[in-house]
Amino acid sequence: MKVVIKITGKVFNEEYTSIIKELALIIKHRYESGDRVAVVVGGGSTARKYISMGRKLGVNNSLLDMLGIEASRINAQLLSYILQDISYPSIPRNINEFLNAWASGKVVVCGGLQPAQSTNAVAALIAEIVNADLLVNATVTDGVYDKDPSRYSDAKLLRRVSIGELEKIIKQEFLPGHYELIDPLALNIVKRSKIRLVFVNAFKPKTIEEVLEGNMDVGTWVIHT
Amino acid sequence: MKVVIKITGKVFNEEYTSIIKELALIIKHRYESGDRVAVVVGGGSTARKYISMGRKLGVNNSLLDMLGIEASRINAQLLSYILQDISYPSIPRNINEFLNAWASGKVVVCGGLQPAQSTNAVAALIAEIVNADLLVNATVTDGVYDKDPSRYSDAKLLRRVSIGELEKIIKQEFLPGHYELIDPLALNIVKRSKIRLVFVNAFKPKTIEEVLEGNMDVGTWVIHT
Amino acid sequence: MKVVIKITGKVFNEEYTSIIKELALIIKHRYESGDRVAVVVGGGSTARKYISMGRKLGVNNSLLDMLGIEASRINAQLLSYILQDISYPSIPRNINEFLNAWASGKVVVCGGLQPAQSTNAVAALIAEIVNADLLVNATVTDGVYDKDPSRYSDAKLLRRVSIGELEKIIKQEFLPGHYELIDPLALNIVKRSKIRLVFVNAFKPKTIEEVLEGNMDVGTWVIHT
Amino acid sequence: MKVVIKITGKVFNEEYTSIIKELALIIKHRYESGDRVAVVVGGGSTARKYISMGRKLGVNNSLLDMLGIEASRINAQLLSYILQDISYPSIPRNINEFLNAWASGKVVVCGGLQPAQSTNAVAALIAEIVNADLLVNATVTDGVYDKDPSRYSDAKLLRRVSIGELEKIIKQEFLPGHYELIDPLALNIVKRSKIRLVFVNAFKPKTIEEVLEGNMDVGTWVIHT
Amino acid sequence: MKVVIKITGKVFNEEYTSIIKELALIIKHRYESGDRVAVVVGGGSTARKYISMGRKLGVNNSLLDMLGIEASRINAQLLSYILQDISYPSIPRNINEFLNAWASGKVVVCGGLQPAQSTNAVAALIAEIVNADLLVNATVTDGVYDKDPSRYSDAKLLRRVSIGELEKIIKQEFLPGHYELIDPLALNIVKRSKIRLVFVNAFKPKTIEEVLEGNMDVGTWVIHT
Amino acid sequence: MKVVIKITGKVFNEEYTSIIKELALIIKHRYESGDRVAVVVGGGSTARKYISMGRKLGVNNSLLDMLGIEASRINAQLLSYILQDISYPSIPRNINEFLNAWASGKVVVCGGLQPAQSTNAVAALIAEIVNADLLVNATVTDGVYDKDPSRYSDAKLLRRVSIGELEKIIKQEFLPGHYELIDPLALNIVKRSKIRLVFVNAFKPKTIEEVLEGNMDVGTWVIHT
Repeated sequence: MKVVIKITGKVFNEEYTSIIKELALIIKHRYESGDRVAVVVGGGSTARKYISMGRKLGVNNSLLDMLGIEASRINAQLLSYILQDISYPSIPRNINEFLNAWASGKVVVCGGLQPAQSTNAVAALIAEIVNADLLVNATVTDGVYDKDPSRYSDAKLLRRVSIGELEKIIKQEFLPGHYELIDPLALNIVKRSKIRLVFVNAFKPKTIEEVLEGNMDVGTWVIHT
Repeated sequence: MKVVIKITGKVFNEEYTSIIKELALIIKHRYESGDRVAVVVGGGSTARKYISMGRKLGVNNSLLDMLGIEASRINAQLLSYILQDISYPSIPRNINEFLNAWASGKVVVCGGLQPAQSTNAVAALIAEIVNADLLVNATVTDGVYDKDPSRYSDAKLLRRVSIGELEKIIKQEFLPGHYELIDPLALNIVKRSKIRLVFVNAFKPKTIEEVLEGNMDVGTWVIHT
Repeated sequence: MKVVIKITGKVFNEEYTSIIKELALIIKHRYESGDRVAVVVGGGSTARKYISMGRKLGVNNSLLDMLGIEASRINAQLLSYILQDISYPSIPRNINEFLNAWASGKVVVCGGLQPAQSTNAVAALIAEIVNADLLVNATVTDGVYDKDPSRYSDAKLLRRVSIGELEKIIKQEFLPGHYELIDPLALNIVKRSKIRLVFVNAFKPKTIEEVLEGNMDVGTWVIHT
Repeated sequence: MKVVIKITGKVFNEEYTSIIKELALIIKHRYESGDRVAVVVGGGSTARKYISMGRKLGVNNSLLDMLGIEASRINAQLLSYILQDISYPSIPRNINEFLNAWASGKVVVCGGLQPAQSTNAVAALIAEIVNADLLVNATVTDGVYDKDPSRYSDAKLLRRVSIGELEKIIKQEFLPGHYELIDPLALNIVKRSKIRLVFVNAFKPKTIEEVLEGNMDVGTWVIHT
Repeated sequence: MKVVIKITGKVFNEEYTSIIKELALIIKHRYESGDRVAVVVGGGSTARKYISMGRKLGVNNSLLDMLGIEASRINAQLLSYILQDISYPSIPRNINEFLNAWASGKVVVCGGLQPAQSTNAVAALIAEIVNADLLVNATVTDGVYDKDPSRYSDAKLLRRVSIGELEKIIKQEFLPGHYELIDPLALNIVKRSKIRLVFVNAFKPKTIEEVLEGNMDVGTWVIHT
Repeated sequence: MKVVIKITGKVFNEEYTSIIKELALIIKHRYESGDRVAVVVGGGSTARKYISMGRKLGVNNSLLDMLGIEASRINAQLLSYILQDISYPSIPRNINEFLNAWASGKVVVCGGLQPAQSTNAVAALIAEIVNADLLVNATVTDGVYDKDPSRYSDAKLLRRVSIGELEKIIKQEFLPGHYELIDPLALNIVKRSKIRLVFVNAFKPKTIEEVLEGNMDVGTWVIHT
C-alpha cells in the first residue's frame, strides 16, 4: 500500500515530543510492514514566528510563504532524523526532488514546496503523483464537523463527507486561520484524481494507525461519487 | 520598472515565427531601456501533444501536468535562445532557481513550475515575489470580454474589469479549455498582493509594447479596490 | 544482463501510441526478469519542430542542438512516466546524473546529453560506462543494408556487418538526414570498447525482444574482430 | 572593502525586530557604498528549540548540529528577504554555493554549513576565502572581557586582545554555552591567515557601523603579532 | 555493521597499485558480507603538487585547501571506479550529498569536504552521522607510538591509547606534516560521540581486514572512559 | 570581443609555474580590457597518472576518461583561483553549468565535460555556443606543421591552413598521443560554424597575447572557405 500522511505543524513543539515519537513509530511500523510512506508536515509555531517577523519587516507575501516553507522543512528534518535509516535524509525542495527521493524506496518526509500553496496541497499533489492508495490528513481536530467545533458545543463530527459537502464547508471558512482542514487547490487535486482521503487527529496518533489499517469508524472519510 | 510578461504557448508554432521574433524584440527593447523583465510561457501545442499521448498511455494527472511543464520549458528555451546574451541561459525549474536566475540581472524566461498549477499562476507568483510593477498577460484574445467572444458575435471587450468581476467571469467557464484567461490560484495571488494586471493579445505584440509604455486604452486592465 | 536500448525519436508521435506501449512492456518485462536496462530516445518530430523554428530565428548550432536535446527529454519523460515505478523519475541531463540514476537500480531513460552529439553517441557512451552486455539500436529500418533501402529496391539487409564495413557505409551518407544509423563518435566508442551492437526496427518491437533473447537471426549484428 | 559580519542568532526573535531592521540598514548602507558584504548568522532560539527536541528523541550529535544549521538558515533567509534586491536570494549550503553566490556581486547571507562547526568558524572561513579586509563578530556582549562579565561585576572590557590572549580566554570557558566568543577552529583560521577581527555587540548595531568606518575605540580588536 | 574507513592519500600512487587493489577487495568483501561501508581518502601527492603550485602563485589558504580537497576527490573517484557497481558513482561534495549517497545502500567513497578541515575530521564526522560501529584510520604507520617512530628507534607501538593520551600526543606535534594521526576537530567528534576508533597501517591492508573482524591485537585502539 | 582559449594540460606542472602566471596575466588583461573570456584546460600529467592507475586496476574506457576530466578540473580550479575575483569560482561540469557561469560576466575556466571527448572538442563547443570571435588553441608546438616536427627536422610551420588540409593532417596521426592538435569532433564543430581558429604555443604566452591582438603572423590560422 502507498500512503501519504499529512501532519499538522502544530505537533512540532517541545510539549508534544511524545506525540512526535508515537507518530514516528507508526510510520516506522508501516514502512517495516512493506508500505510505501510519504509524510508531509506543516510549519506550525516556527512558521508563525518567522512570518510574523517578516511581515513586520516588510517582506512580501511570496517570501513570507517561503519562510513558512523553510520552517516546515525543519519540522520535516526533525521527523526524518528520528526515523533515520528508514527515511530519505534530504527534505525535497520541489516535486522533482521528491520523485527522486521516492525512488530510493525509503520513507520521504516533506515540508512545503512553493509559495501560495499550503502543505495540504503538497500532500494532495504527492498522493496524486505516486498514485497513493490513501491520503491521511492528520489535523488538530478529530475530523470534519458540521459546524466549527471550537465555537459551537453542539458541532457534530461527520464520519463521511462528500467532496461537494467539503467544498461547501471550506467556503464557510467559519474560523479563518484556526480551522484549516484543506484548501481549494488540495481539494481540486483530490477531486480530479478521486484520491481516497481521511481526516484524523494528529494529537491522537492511534487514530492514524487505525485508518491505515482500514478502520472506517475513525476520523472523517471523504466520499467520491 | 519590473515587469512580468505571460505569453500564451499557442504562439510557439512554426507559422508564428514572426510573432515570436516581434515578442523577442519587445523584450529586448525593454531590457535595454533598463527594465527588469521576467517572461513566463505556456506549453501550447507541444504540451497538448504529449498530454494527449500520456493520457492514452495511462499516465496520471500530475505526471501529465509535468509533461505539459516540460513542453512549456522548450518554448521558454527557444525564446531564451533568441534573446541569447540578455537572457539567463537556464530555464528555472522551481521558484528558488527562478530567484537565483533573477539575481543575475538578466531577462529570465520560465515555463511551468509544478503540477496542478497553470503558467498563469506561475506568472502571478513571480510577479508577487519580485514585487513587479506590472503583470502583462498576453493571451489569445484582445482582453476580457463580457461574454465568450468565440461564441457570441456581440461580446464586448472590457477596458477595465474589477477583481470581483474577473472572479465571476472565471466561474462561468463558458468555453472550458479554450477561453483560458486566468485560474483561481493566479487570481488569488493577484488579489492578495494587489498586483497590477493587464490582459492583451499575444498575437498583436504591439499591444504588449503599448501597455508597457502605460497606455491604458489597450487590452483589459484589472482594477483593485 | 545489462542492456542499453536506443529508440528512434520518430516513434514518439500520436499515431504510434501502441508502438510506445509495446516498447514499454518489453522494457518492463526485461526489468522484471532481473536485467538492468538503460534506454536512450531521440528527439523525433518535436526536435525537428523546434530546431526549424530556432534556425529561422537565428539561434546558433549548439543551441539548436540543445533544443533537440530538450525535445528528446520530453520523449524520455513520457516513456519514463509510462514505466512509472520501475523507472528513475528524472531524466539525466549529463553523465554524472546518469550514473547516479543508474545506481538506483531502476530503468533509466535518457534523451540527449550534449550539443554536437547524437543520441546514438549517448547510447554508446552509456553502454560503455555501465559495461553493457548489449547495445540495441532500434531505428527506422530493419537493420543495415548494403545500399540505401529507401532509394534502391534491391537493397539487401545484412545480418552481420563488421565495424570496418559499418565505417564505410556511414561515410557514404547516401541519404543524409534520413538514413541515420550511427555517427562517427558512437562508432568510435563501440569500436574502442568492442561493445556488442545490434540494429533492429523500433516499429517492430518484437524484434527488440528477440535480440534481447539472443536471437541473432533478427536485425543486423555488428562483428568485432 | 570586503567585510564579513557574523551576527549572533540571539537577535532573531520577535522582540528584537527593530534591531534586525537596523542591522539590515547598516548592511544596505555598506553595500551601496561599494563594499562587498557577507553576513553569517547563528541559529539562536530556533536552533535551541529543535536541538532540544531532537536530543529528547534520540537524534545523534551530527544530526542535532544539522537541525541547528537549518535553524540558522531560516534566520539567514529572513535577513536576506529584508535586504531583498541587494542580497543573493538563496542561502548557501556549502562553501561552493557560497562562492557562486559571492560571484553575483550581491550581499550573501549564510547560516551554518557543516556539523561539528560553529557559525563563528563559518564566518572565519568565509573571511579567509574571500580575502576579507575585516571580520566583524557581532555577539551578545560589547567585546572581550578579562573575566566573565555576566559573573563578575568588575570584569573589564578589553579594547585590544592578542591572538594568544584570546586562545587563553577561550580555554577558560568560564560560562559554557553562554559566553561564546569564538571556537578553536575559527581562531585557528583567523590566526593562520592573520584576519583582522573585531568583536562588537549585535544588540548595539551602531557599533557595527562604527567599526566598519574604522573606529578602533569601539568593541575589542584582535591583534596579530 | 557500519564502518568508516579512512585511507591515507599516500596510497594513491602508481607504485602502490597493488595495495589499492587489495584495499578495494577488502571493501568489496565487507560490502558483500552485509556491512555498510563508507570510505574517506586523503589527497596524497596530488594534493601536495597542487597546493605547492597554488602557494607559489598567491592562492589563499582556504583555496589551497580546496585544491587539496579536489585532489582527494580524484583519489576517491579512482577507488570508487575500481569498486564500480557496489559503490555510489559520485563523490559527495558536502555532508548532504554524502547522506543522499549513503541512502543508496552502496559503498560511499569520499574525499575532503571543506577548507580548514582534514580528511580525518571528515571521517570522524561521517562515522558520527551514520552511527558507525567502527572508524578505522588507515595511516602510514602501524598505529600510535609513544614517541615519533621516524625519529626514535625505540618508539613503542601502543595497542591501546586513551582519548586523553591521544590529545597529549597530538599536542606534541613532534614531526609536523609527517606524523599526522588525527587533528583536534576529528578528535573532538570522536570524543563527544565516543566513536570506536582504531589506527592501522594502510600499506598493510590485511590489518584493516583484521580489525574489521574484531581483532584487537592489531593496530592501536582508542579507549573511551 | 568574445574569446575561447584552450590551454594544454602539459603546462600544469610545478616547473612551469611562471608560465601559468603569465597565462593568468594575459587572461586578466583581456578581461579588464572588456573582452569576454572562456578558458578550457587539459588534464596533463595528472590525467595521465590517474588514467594509467585506473587502466592497471581494470577501470573501463569511459571511466578512465572521467578520471582525466577530473584531473583537467583541478588544473582549471588552480587557474581559476589564481584569477580569483575575475573568474567564476566553480568549474562547470556540463554545458548547462557552463552557460550559467558564463552569464555571470566573469572569466569561466573549464576542464573536460564528458567521456569520449577531448578538451579540444569542449573548447570548440564553447566557442560555438557563445558565438566566440576567436578560438585560440594553445598547444605544445608553435602551430601546425606540414610534417611531424618532433620527427622531421625540416618540418615547416604553416602560417595558414585550410579546414580541408587540417582534416588530412589529423588523419595522418603521425605521432599518436604526442602531437595532438585537434580531434575530429572539435574539427567538425569548427567547420560547421566556421569558427575562427588559431594554433599557438602555450609555452610562449606572448604569442597568445599577439593573436588576441589580431597579429596573424603568429601561430597557424585556420582558413574557412
